[in-house]
Amino acid sequence: MADLTLTTYDWVPEAPRGFVRDIRVRWALEEAALPYRVKSTPFRARGPEHFAHQPFGQVPWLTDGDISIFESGAILLHLGNRSHALIPADPRCRSEATEWLFAALNSVEMASLPWSILVFSGDTGDTPEWKRLDAFLKARLQHMEPVLAGREWLAGSFSIADILMADVLRLVDRFKGLAGYPACRDYVARATARPSFVKAHADQIAHFAAAD
Amino acid sequence: MADLTLTTYDWVPEAPRGFVRDIRVRWALEEAALPYRVKSTPFRARGPEHFAHQPFGQVPWLTDGDISIFESGAILLHLGNRSHALIPADPRCRSEATEWLFAALNSVEMASLPWSILVFSGDTGDTPEWKRLDAFLKARLQHMEPVLAGREWLAGSFSIADILMADVLRLVDRFKGLAGYPACRDYVARATARPSFVKAHADQIAHFAAAD
Repeated sequence: MADLTLTTYDWVPEAPRGFVRDIRVRWALEEAALPYRVKSTPFRARGPEHFAHQPFGQVPWLTDGDISIFESGAILLHLGNRSHALIPADPRCRSEATEWLFAALNSVEMASLPWSILVFSGDTGDTPEWKRLDAFLKARLQHMEPVLAGREWLAGSFSIADILMADVLRLVDRFKGLAGYPACRDYVARATARPSFVKAHADQIAHFAAAD
Repeated sequence: MADLTLTTYDWVPEAPRGFVRDIRVRWALEEAALPYRVKSTPFRARGPEHFAHQPFGQVPWLTDGDISIFESGAILLHLGNRSHALIPADPRCRSEATEWLFAALNSVEMASLPWSILVFSGDTGDTPEWKRLDAFLKARLQHMEPVLAGREWLAGSFSIADILMADVLRLVDRFKGLAGYPACRDYVARATARPSFVKAHADQIAHFAAAD
């Protein structure tokens, strides 16, 4: 049953700590109470072994027996097939959880990640480029706001869709991007108050701090 | 078995024709030889019925019996569970197809879509914002290039991962973004030469032309 190993960097700079994507996998594993080990791969020297598991040189990846999986969405879907704590059993709710999992990544994060890259790097001048990407994110948040005002979780009960959507919105919130979206902020607050998130977050912070 | 209905806009302007995302679903349905109908929803007046199926006011969505699914990734995964023409039967290849499906959307399109938005709108000046997003896309393409130079399809045989990756790269190619990436271009050429893509593309063009 339990030969799950999560691999993340051995170390990262201060800024991304608490936001490295292994937290999505840790969070899911804690919600499902699945036992797992954590391994490290060098942050500074990314070799062929790293690219064999993660072709973009990023983290995390998960090994489950002899299968190795990259992409946080794919990993969470894989784990979802092992635990009803991660995807509801009802077929309609399963379908909803799957579509919202994709929406978190491909409709919201597709706008929020480029936005966050520009905010983090300070490249947010009075340019057409910045205005267009800021408008792109706001259009997506405006659609999320009524959705999240109307329900506690995205697919009937808490699921991997919420882990991804909350983690995506959490980064926007870090950069003050949710100021005009109270339902989005409340949703992030309620998701990150879950004991499994609190533990996953503390574990990630401790993992990187141990390498300092 | 076959109560599949794909919904797309009734009309779109010239520029996006051939690139509206219903083509991903058409392509998959053609590959799997699954019978389906196509329905239209107004492009100009997007009402509550539209948002009930697609919370961001976009297309496509697919209904399969009484289940309605949005997000092209979720739809293709749903169809993949119905046909080995879309996901290989071997468990390791299935896992690879799933992770590459997410990679197409979340590692490549996350960089290429914001880039395409700026290129399409002409917002590509000599600004830090544009340089950073252009570099973001190039970094992803540089990792895709050796992957696609080394294999015909992403997961052992043709799969839904290829439909998404090829469609994502096809838009970059339209805006001349694959000039330095011959393996990516060859991959797009090989994927779009498939009869199922050719039919899906012609059907989309005809669908929108019929509304002119």
